[in-house]
Order: sequence, then structure tokens, then C-alpha cells
Amino acid sequence: MTTERLARQLQFILELDKLKGILRRSLLLESHRRENSAEHSWHLAMMVLVLAEHADEPVDQLHTLKLVLVHDIVEIDAGDTYAYDADGHAGKDERERMAAQRIFGLLPAEQAKELINLWEEYEEQKTAEARFALALDRLMPFLHNYHTDGVTWRENRVTSVQVKERMAPVGVASDALGRTVSNITEQAVASGLLPHSWSEP
Amino acid sequence: MTTERLARQLQFILELDKLKGILRRSLLLESHRRENSAEHSWHLAMMVLVLAEHADEPVDQLHTLKLVLVHDIVEIDAGDTYAYDADGHAGKDERERMAAQRIFGLLPAEQAKELINLWEEYEEQKTAEARFALALDRLMPFLHNYHTDGVTWRENRVTSVQVKERMAPVGVASDALGRTVSNITEQAVASGLLPHSWSEP
Repeated sequence: MTTERLARQLQFILELDKLKGILRRSLLLESHRRENSAEHSWHLAMMVLVLAEHADEPVDQLHTLKLVLVHDIVEIDAGDTYAYDADGHAGKDERERMAAQRIFGLLPAEQAKELINLWEEYEEQKTAEARFALALDRLMPFLHNYHTDGVTWRENRVTSVQVKERMAPVGVASDALGRTVSNITEQAVASGLLPHSWSEP
Repeated sequence: MTTERLARQLQFILELDKLKGILRRSLLLESHRRENSAEHSWHLAMMVLVLAEHADEPVDQLHTLKLVLVHDIVEIDAGDTYAYDADGHAGKDERERMAAQRIFGLLPAEQAKELINLWEEYEEQKTAEARFALALDRLMPFLHNYHTDGVTWRENRVTSVQVKERMAPVGVASDALGRTVSNITEQAVASGLLPHSWSEP
């Protein structure tokens, strides 16, 4: 006998498979194929294990792991919205809220509530763990861009000012990681990967 | 200034990108493309969050998460060895041990040691957390196979006896999950997805 509770949990687990089909803009370092949100979430979790010491405010490692593991699941319904796509952000909150209700709602009630709370905590950015999780979520695609010759910056005509604004949360959560981002940004500008502005097409 | 310590940590993080290119035999439920080991590791981590209550021995959630996040990283060098491939298992231990030394060795010494210890703990199967992590690692591709009409069972002429042997660790760690596997196996046999034996080609 599989209890109804376990059946609901397994249905949720199977539903999660869809996150592996949600493609981000970031390119993988070797194959240059686009990254999906499931493998990205694993990569962030590994960053929590390895980089937690650089959070300026102490963070609970388990809680931060939960935040990064859960934070993109709503994309199964709502899709990934590209960082520098202003239009795509219209209606994003409402789409994601409905997605959270449907997907986490597959779980038994108290587990659904726990995961919705984690997703909301990440979105609201009011805890040290949420701020550090966001910092890692911004840092990783930045590193990907830099190490794939800035392809997605170029494709989307992203400027150094936009990148600095986008990366601000890294320095908020961690001086050390913020300094690293500044250094790499300077190198990207100096080498022409990331211009201050793009000439007209 | 990026300290040498942080530089090593970031080098490790970038190296991990390669796990997204290691393909398993399991097919994704919708696209039927082969799964990679990074997205698989995320999926296991989510199973730890949702299914930990079914472990018969109490498990520490953070520790179990670390085990599943880290357990496949050696495949970056050693490759994925298919469950039912007896030849592929020759030399697997030695290949993986060298991989662990090289990949985790990118990290500062005490972090390298921590991650090597986690990987060894998983391999040695002597703790409740390692046993539960293995149970999830066996359960997930089983569910994938069942829900993709047994394609990889058929391609590799896997029998019900082989599956039962392979799934034994699930029941070791969790009565509830073990019963679920038994039920699904019976259904797979009854519906012809998983025969007791394959006729000669």
C-alpha cells in the first residue's frame, strides 16, 4: 500500500522533472548549450556548500540550501524570465504566484506551505539566507558569461552599467564575492567583452 | 583582491559545470532526452526535502543533502556507469578514487577533505544518511523507467529479478518506499514492461 500522503509526494517529485526542460540564457562552459534551471539549482546548492563562509551575515546552511533548491521551481509553469528583459518581467509576479500554488499544492498541505514559504522568503529578500542565496544566483550566470566570452551579453547588448546594477546584491551579501565581481567586470570591460555602451546596429 | 582561497573555491565551482554534460541512461519524462548527473543530483536533493520522513532510521537532513549533492561529482572524470553494465564496473572504484582526489583537490585542503569524506561515506554505506541517499538514488531512475514505458529496461533487456535486486536498498532504508517499489514492479511485470526473462534475440 502506498498511502495517499506518499502518493502526493511522489506526484510532486515526478512533476519536478519538468524543471530540467526550462532553459535559461546562460551557456554551459564546455558545450555552450543553454543551461536548464534544474542543473543550475544543483550548481547553486554546491556554491552554498563551498562559499557559505563568505556571507557577511552568518547564514544557516540547511536553510540556504532549501532556498536555492526551491527558488526556481515556479518556472515549470511561469518560465524563466531573462535578467535584462524588461517586458518579460510584466506579470511575472502573478504568474509565479499561481505556479507556486499549483506545483507546491501537489504536496500534503503542511509541506506545500513550507515550500511556498521558502519560495516567498527568497522573493522577499528579508533574511540573511535569502540575500546570500540571491547573491549566488547572480554570481553564477555572471561567471558563465565571462567564461563563455560574453556571448549572451553581446547577443542581448548588455552594458557594463546594467551588469553592475544586476550584480549589486552580490556585494550586499558578501564583501569578498562583491570584490571578485568588480575585478572580473573590470577585466571584461578592459578586454571589450562588456562595453559601456553598444553602437547602434 | 580575490584571495587564493576564494580563487580555488571558484575554480572548483567552475569545474563542476562539467557534471551537466555527464549523461545517464534515464530518460526525462516529457522530452525523453537522457538525463544528466547535475540535474539528477538536484532531483535527489528535492527528494531529501520531501521524503526524509520515510527513512526508517532518523536521518540528518543537511547531512543527507550534502551526500546526494556530492555523490556523482566523480563522474566528471570517471563517467557514469550504467546500473546493469557488469563490464563497466571493472575498474570503477579506482577511476572514481582518482577523480575524487583531482576534483575535490581543487578546493582548499580542509574543504577537499570534507567533500572526499562525504563521497566515501556514500560509497561505504555505513550510516543511516548514506543508506537513505542510496535508496533515493535507486528509486528515482526506477520511477523514470516506469513512467517512460520501460524504454531503458527494454533496450538493455533488464529482467524483473535484476530490478528487484537493484532496488533492494530502497526497502533497507525505508519500508514505505520499499513497498511502493514492490507495487510498481508488480504493475510493470503485469503490464509487460518488465518481463521475468527476455526471449533470445
